[in-house]
Amino acid sequence: MTEFKTVRGMRDFLPEEAKVMRSIEAKARRVAELYGYGEVITPIVESHELLAAKAGEEVKSRMFVFKDLGGRDVALRPEFTASVARLVATTLRNHPRPFRLFSTGSVYRYDEPQKGRYREFWQSNYELMGSSRPEADAELIVLTDSLMAGVGLKDYVFKVGHVGVLRGIFTQEKLDDEVQDAIMLAMDKKQYDGALRIVKDSGVSDKCLDVLKRLVELRGREVFAVVEKMQKLVESYDKALEAADNLLEILRLVSKSGCKIDMIADAGFARGLEYYTGMIFETNVPDLDIALGGGGRYDRLIELFGGEPTPAVGVAHGLDRIMLAMLGQKISLESTGEKRVMIIPISKALSGEALEIARLLRDAGTPVEVEVMGRKMVKALEDANRRDLDYAVIVGERELKEGSVVVRDLKKRDQTIVKIKDICGAIKERH
Amino acid sequence: MTEFKTVRGMRDFLPEEAKVMRSIEAKARRVAELYGYGEVITPIVESHELLAAKAGEEVKSRMFVFKDLGGRDVALRPEFTASVARLVATTLRNHPRPFRLFSTGSVYRYDEPQKGRYREFWQSNYELMGSSRPEADAELIVLTDSLMAGVGLKDYVFKVGHVGVLRGIFTQEKLDDEVQDAIMLAMDKKQYDGALRIVKDSGVSDKCLDVLKRLVELRGREVFAVVEKMQKLVESYDKALEAADNLLEILRLVSKSGCKIDMIADAGFARGLEYYTGMIFETNVPDLDIALGGGGRYDRLIELFGGEPTPAVGVAHGLDRIMLAMLGQKISLESTGEKRVMIIPISKALSGEALEIARLLRDAGTPVEVEVMGRKMVKALEDANRRDLDYAVIVGERELKEGSVVVRDLKKRDQTIVKIKDICGAIKERH
Repeated sequence: MTEFKTVRGMRDFLPEEAKVMRSIEAKARRVAELYGYGEVITPIVESHELLAAKAGEEVKSRMFVFKDLGGRDVALRPEFTASVARLVATTLRNHPRPFRLFSTGSVYRYDEPQKGRYREFWQSNYELMGSSRPEADAELIVLTDSLMAGVGLKDYVFKVGHVGVLRGIFTQEKLDDEVQDAIMLAMDKKQYDGALRIVKDSGVSDKCLDVLKRLVELRGREVFAVVEKMQKLVESYDKALEAADNLLEILRLVSKSGCKIDMIADAGFARGLEYYTGMIFETNVPDLDIALGGGGRYDRLIELFGGEPTPAVGVAHGLDRIMLAMLGQKISLESTGEKRVMIIPISKALSGEALEIARLLRDAGTPVEVEVMGRKMVKALEDANRRDLDYAVIVGERELKEGSVVVRDLKKRDQTIVKIKDICGAIKERH
Repeated sequence: MTEFKTVRGMRDFLPEEAKVMRSIEAKARRVAELYGYGEVITPIVESHELLAAKAGEEVKSRMFVFKDLGGRDVALRPEFTASVARLVATTLRNHPRPFRLFSTGSVYRYDEPQKGRYREFWQSNYELMGSSRPEADAELIVLTDSLMAGVGLKDYVFKVGHVGVLRGIFTQEKLDDEVQDAIMLAMDKKQYDGALRIVKDSGVSDKCLDVLKRLVELRGREVFAVVEKMQKLVESYDKALEAADNLLEILRLVSKSGCKIDMIADAGFARGLEYYTGMIFETNVPDLDIALGGGGRYDRLIELFGGEPTPAVGVAHGLDRIMLAMLGQKISLESTGEKRVMIIPISKALSGEALEIARLLRDAGTPVEVEVMGRKMVKALEDANRRDLDYAVIVGERELKEGSVVVRDLKKRDQTIVKIKDICGAIKERH
């Protein structure tokens, strides 16, 4: 018989890992509540046409595409934005602006599996649609900081840039969109020489090439100083200058918000997806060479999906990567302080009573496992110890006659006789 | 331009619906904790071979099957049990018994869409593996009751049966497995006449046919009386009698546990999946003709997946259906009591201060939306009212000079001036 395995690139989360993943998801949901983002749950299976509409070639070629039994061309979502944009362009079309929408769940890309990269992975996704103002851009950065700090991460840094700066120069220099995209793609892969070569081959002025060379090298933690240099460099390019002004305003707002965010402004920063139109950002930790999350402004997105022109900013966070970063920073979950109890009837005849006591404790909010293996007391206690439970409640004939049971403290290794009617209090009080 | 839509059979949950779905999921997770079930997260994409191994023909023909980019035959899980069984047969093979494992998420079947039935739907799934004892069977029923009661459902009833009764008769009468499966399938579809016709055609004794006819009609809320009648009817069939005894013991345990469960014992009850070997059950509400959840014992399952022989009971609950039942019973979510606030700067220059006050409130656990549309005060307040927020915090030059803001109670329609340093308390205190 073949041994069954997960499909290549897919993973299981065992209970300890699942607990961490669910706690990150819960924190992401709490951040959504605190910032006023309503959750939407969209299908994992969407039409291929929808998912391909905005995806760059690279993502498109790595989607899980197939036909359903009705012959429809469908695919597994590679991210959330297309589905949210569909909602905003259709069902929610007449809803008043702004939209703040949150999603979380698994997404699918046929990437080469490696550390922290699976073909099924988990994201939280936030979209703020309807506002073109820098307050909206700032909100997404501050919100991402709330999530990173909320899960306990310490040593993370935001990289912030603005595609409008480079795009503004290219457009004023009359470069074709295709050439522009090729340059941005090379930049995204940090192939700066390659990018500059494409610029050079496109026949721009020496002055322009010089500006670009300086921009590509311009980055640093003194974000206001960096952006002021950007403004100087691009002062003869109107749109680029506007973009730099916009970036400065966003950074000022973030800094005024009172969050102590560690930021790097990066004039040569590009993100792979071709649909960004404004500010872009990413969050990184030193140990991982992939970003924990990233996003930016895409003001033409909703039109692409057939909706009204709607300015928009969004961010997606990789929950598997956040989990990996937490592991790297040795962050463990806060204990709930809940005590776990095993109930052991000393004979089969007392199983009903065991179930009844279990119900009392659970109704009072105490997690309880009932011994269901029919093991002898010693074996059952061994098992309870091995699984690190806190108490064993032993149900025996003799004590039961007096309405009592034995409560054994598995950590302190002592035991007392407790009336059944007092059992919930007795277990809580011991702490 | 084509208008993008969800793929047929798939659905979106808008914020109000998503909130209900997530609350059911959270309750299912809490029940898992209270009963000692560890959560595992398994992939939605599994090998077709794995998912087909246990599925009946009907489920198999309705799976979403395709090839991934590496040419692997994969499918979207139609349920959780195969994935959990894979884990138990492989990764967790050497883990001490019993296993209590919980899963929740979306599953996929190409059914004809109808009320409460989608092609992507949501389940919570609990497996208790390693115990052959009736305490384990009883636990799954009691746990299901905790979930149904936990989400606030009132008018639900459990139907309980035991495939071992009918199977015991068929086996003693030497019917082929295929004939047995055909009969059980007809029974599951409530085609009792059809089922009896197959029995008759198989050439069993008149006495046997008579017993079956009576069993098929035997059901009722007086569960102990019903099972005692079953015992009488099948007293000449050893295995069937054992099964009836087992069912009686399970029902006694459930009743002793102190849960007030409304139950129907049904001697003619069968569940579609051919792998059940013992007790089976379902939960129903009057308004819906599909079960909210169901499960039972399948002692040969883990072997089927290449693992050690491991007795097992499991149950799956349809979360979409539970949601529908809640709607039918007009159950609304408990309010969190949290107040929602909008912060409105009266001019663009005060956006930074608005973000800062937002941070203070969020740090204190109050959900806050910041005005990001650059609207005039009146428009912004209109929007806050329309979206049923509780407070508006208005940030103006004049008050700010004294370290204050205006807090407007949108429900009572009055306002006061509050020091910024006291803002968190001020909003909480007003209740």
